Amino acid sequence: MTSSDLQEQLNMKALSLLQEDADKIEKLIEVQMENLATRYCPLYEEVLDTQMFGFSKEVDFAVRAGLVNPLVGKQILSKLERTLALLYEALNTKE
Amino acid sequence: MTSSDLQEQLNMKALSLLQEDADKIEKLIEVQMENLATRYCPLYEEVLDTQMFGFSKEVDFAVRAGLVNPLVGKQILSKLERTLALLYEALNTKE
Repeated sequence: MTSSDLQEQLNMKALSLLQEDADKIEKLIEVQMENLATRYCPLYEEVLDTQMFGFSKEVDFAVRAGLVNPLVGKQILSKLERTLALLYEALNTKE
Repeated sequence: MTSSDLQEQLNMKALSLLQEDADKIEKLIEVQMENLATRYCPLYEEVLDTQMFGFSKEVDFAVRAGLVNPLVGKQILSKLERTLALLYEALNTKE
């Protein structure tokens, strides 16, 4: 394997790990969205904030380690933040 | 550059980034240790816990991405946890 093949492979691996973790958080958000009308758990916000913080640290590390393009890292985070904002908006409308 | 050179370079980069972040947290702990007698800030514990959580996510990611040996990752975390435990012990003795 050439070094550029290896770099590409490591970059793809890093990206797929981040996507995996982003999907997990998105799933958490979806579950809360679905349960909006029935049973809202106030701890959910804290859990989501903590998960988002941990995830931002991962993305940041991947960028600093040279595995993920800074712009791509920013996009992954923004997408998740937008989804989270939708949940909070829905929560506020409900109140 | 051969692919094994590149892998080694990326691994060293990842390790030095982790060490850099561990040092920052250790510095936070030291500051609190030094101020134990004079001005204890209760928010410090929360800040340290949050930083530790974020750091553990970084280490975890570096291991999953194949940049850091799982055992080495564990050692870096344990070392920091021991330092933190010393601080908490000192806080309890003071109370």
